[in-house]
Amino acid sequence: MNYRVVFYVIGLVLEVEAVFLMLPLIVSLIYRENSWYYYLITAAVCFLVGYFWSRKRPAHETLYPRDGFLTVALSWLVLSAAGAVPFVLTGDIPHYIDALFETISGFTTTGSSILTDVEALSKSGLFWRSFTHWVGGMGVVVFIMALLPMVGASTMNLMKAESPGPSVERLVPHVRDTASLLYKIYIGITLAEILCLLLSGMSVYESLTLTFGTVGTGGFGVLNSSIGSYTSLQQYIIAIFMILSGINYSFYFLLISKKAKDAFKLQEVHWYLIIIAVSVVAITINISSISANLPTAFREALFQVGSIITTTGYSTADFGRWPAFSQTILVILMFIGACAGSTGGGIKVSRIMILGKTIRKELTTIVHPRVVRKIRMDGHPIAHETTRSTNVYIAVYSIILFLSVLLISVDEFDFTTNFTAVVATLNNIGPGLNTVGPACNFAHFSYFSKVILMFDMLAGRLELFPMLVLFAPSCWSRPLNVTFHVKNLLKK
Amino acid sequence: MNYRVVFYVIGLVLEVEAVFLMLPLIVSLIYRENSWYYYLITAAVCFLVGYFWSRKRPAHETLYPRDGFLTVALSWLVLSAAGAVPFVLTGDIPHYIDALFETISGFTTTGSSILTDVEALSKSGLFWRSFTHWVGGMGVVVFIMALLPMVGASTMNLMKAESPGPSVERLVPHVRDTASLLYKIYIGITLAEILCLLLSGMSVYESLTLTFGTVGTGGFGVLNSSIGSYTSLQQYIIAIFMILSGINYSFYFLLISKKAKDAFKLQEVHWYLIIIAVSVVAITINISSISANLPTAFREALFQVGSIITTTGYSTADFGRWPAFSQTILVILMFIGACAGSTGGGIKVSRIMILGKTIRKELTTIVHPRVVRKIRMDGHPIAHETTRSTNVYIAVYSIILFLSVLLISVDEFDFTTNFTAVVATLNNIGPGLNTVGPACNFAHFSYFSKVILMFDMLAGRLELFPMLVLFAPSCWSRPLNVTFHVKNLLKK
Repeated sequence: MNYRVVFYVIGLVLEVEAVFLMLPLIVSLIYRENSWYYYLITAAVCFLVGYFWSRKRPAHETLYPRDGFLTVALSWLVLSAAGAVPFVLTGDIPHYIDALFETISGFTTTGSSILTDVEALSKSGLFWRSFTHWVGGMGVVVFIMALLPMVGASTMNLMKAESPGPSVERLVPHVRDTASLLYKIYIGITLAEILCLLLSGMSVYESLTLTFGTVGTGGFGVLNSSIGSYTSLQQYIIAIFMILSGINYSFYFLLISKKAKDAFKLQEVHWYLIIIAVSVVAITINISSISANLPTAFREALFQVGSIITTTGYSTADFGRWPAFSQTILVILMFIGACAGSTGGGIKVSRIMILGKTIRKELTTIVHPRVVRKIRMDGHPIAHETTRSTNVYIAVYSIILFLSVLLISVDEFDFTTNFTAVVATLNNIGPGLNTVGPACNFAHFSYFSKVILMFDMLAGRLELFPMLVLFAPSCWSRPLNVTFHVKNLLKK
Repeated sequence: MNYRVVFYVIGLVLEVEAVFLMLPLIVSLIYRENSWYYYLITAAVCFLVGYFWSRKRPAHETLYPRDGFLTVALSWLVLSAAGAVPFVLTGDIPHYIDALFETISGFTTTGSSILTDVEALSKSGLFWRSFTHWVGGMGVVVFIMALLPMVGASTMNLMKAESPGPSVERLVPHVRDTASLLYKIYIGITLAEILCLLLSGMSVYESLTLTFGTVGTGGFGVLNSSIGSYTSLQQYIIAIFMILSGINYSFYFLLISKKAKDAFKLQEVHWYLIIIAVSVVAITINISSISANLPTAFREALFQVGSIITTTGYSTADFGRWPAFSQTILVILMFIGACAGSTGGGIKVSRIMILGKTIRKELTTIVHPRVVRKIRMDGHPIAHETTRSTNVYIAVYSIILFLSVLLISVDEFDFTTNFTAVVATLNNIGPGLNTVGPACNFAHFSYFSKVILMFDMLAGRLELFPMLVLFAPSCWSRPLNVTFHVKNLLKK
């Protein structure tokens, strides 16, 4: 294990966080809140510790996959642990475990909240809470890689650990350029939404915070009614930007590279939009009888479908009161999630597609044993490795899901609450059904359950394996004598 | 497609069913019920149609896998369609869809019932209802194979389609001998339980019907209280025989072959018993405060755990009123299911083990990329084919699960009801939670939802693929020109 690089990267993460903490500090100065010096203290400590750990660039920057996973997992833990401090200092969220839950929920772009009254928070606190979504959406380690030149193999393993999706494609040959390109697209979408919201007449403060929650697919709002009390136009703007943020960033890359034809051929994007369209139509019809009129039903269906499939978690309607059929569609969308390579969470449309293609292939083999068929995506055959890791991903996902439901069931809430609470956190969505529905929150869970759900949020955001590697005892041991192991195996 | 063999096998199935129908006929004569001639009429029609279809042995008995799947799927549909008729004729279950639901639930050893008052049925009707469990437990096609000599390749494909588990092992070189051996063990366990129950003081009628429900892991009882009103001793007898019926039949084969040492080494059986032990201890502790005393808590925990993991579905306590933690354990056991090669349903312990080993291997590969590790079971490496088909099985399983929950949600029951109703039918268990809990039934679902749940019961019993092959359009077309297909692929 290359501990020096691990500490180096975590040190950089803390330095970056110190810079980010200047934003809520500025907000608190603008709104003349007394809390500005708490942000300053936190930022100063972060910067000092970070500077100490990263002051010397390690001689060897080689990172094996396990080192990459471990570095990213620890980075996110340290990032969240430090990010939660201002909430406690300012008194916005007095208990540290609650503050940590809210911060992890923010960075992982989940949006599940333990706050019963969001509007009671300070302006600067709400701003920091929403800004964590923006940081977590594209990833803080990717951010560092966009800024700093690091050596090939190491950075790819870091990027693999933090980026969502079954396979990380380098958009351009160099990892650093890929990271910087991703952030450019991300900033572009962010500015576009801020502009649209400002033009619609929204205040600067709300335009910024709601945009952070949209493009990071987070879901923290600044009002208790989430997005319900904004105008129809503003709701449509947010709905469209949520859906845009769930699209694979390769699409935007191809667009700006003037390969629009290739961009519109991406099968994952097709299926993502088809799933959204079918769900919106089905729910619009299903809720039309309980809505004021058909346009309202359509707007509510579009917003909630866009919010859930992209795992954002904003709401304009209490879908806890919708018919069971619409609720079930939303639960299924929670599992599907957004496109790989977007800021959204969930299992990802491409993984579902690979699964579907594998099943089709298997059925064909049964019916016509001698027909040879390869699984293809966007015209290229899928590597056997990708299919296998998709299957393993789904298996690990199911096991974490059921174990978590079992563990939080000690709190004695009903099955629907427990099941959807885990689904909503593991897929980084936010609200579930029943007592964790869009009109409710996660405050009533015990601290034990909150810790489980925090693990699920991190596991979901980092695509399971980095968090599991943390628990693999051999990961912490000294470098293995691999030759010895292989010899032993050969002997048998 | 070899339609002649398909009709031949279905003909045999109908003939066998005619013989089986003599049993409720005898019961109705003993209890002087007027319904005996309805069984006679149904049996006569079954026999005539069956005789007509199977009177000439087909010249070519070759069956491809798809033919095997199709034959078994159609056999089970015809078996159920005919088996439901007496219920309607005798007036026990007046509506045919309800009667079909109850019969499919019987043959698939599910035990989900649409009856609100079981005790209102005639003695002969209840007997037939329980006997369908016994027929479905080991499988009617396997029964025919045990009686009739058929040619190698064909029978193996039939057996593969009807037998539970990721891989069918031939216990002895000839398929026919394997089938006959399985039935001998099955009859042995059946007689042993009948004897134990008779010795405990139970009536002959109840000993027979409850044994059919136990060894077939079905779950239809003859009282509204299921097994709750029997003595503690009788409850223990049934609990132990349920657990014995969930064990891989290879275990019994090794025992009677005097290879006890090998039998006790079977890893699947170890894990099956470990899971039962852990669950019983956890639930006993969890429900001890609401039970009369610790022995009662233990007996109730053992019975319910044994009933759910073997997918039987008998109950001695309304676990719908248990704490959420115990309920969640039971829901997880519903998914796990019994051992492969037993009469029980569910995903099967061996599939869960293969999944677990695959995940462990994948994690090891991440942590130590150069360590080579093979997945092993009982000391032998697992074929790549088995791992892959396990993954595909779980994927298909999940898709059927979620689609079914979506479809039955149009009935507007709550999420827990819909989710556990599908889990209980797809895993051939019986009761779920909330309005389909052990104290309730499936009567309140619409006919549409009942049809979905019937599909799930058949899909669960036949291990998914036979039922899916039914819907593959190419399965019904003329034999494919395979060469043409391969050529086309090579061209691309």
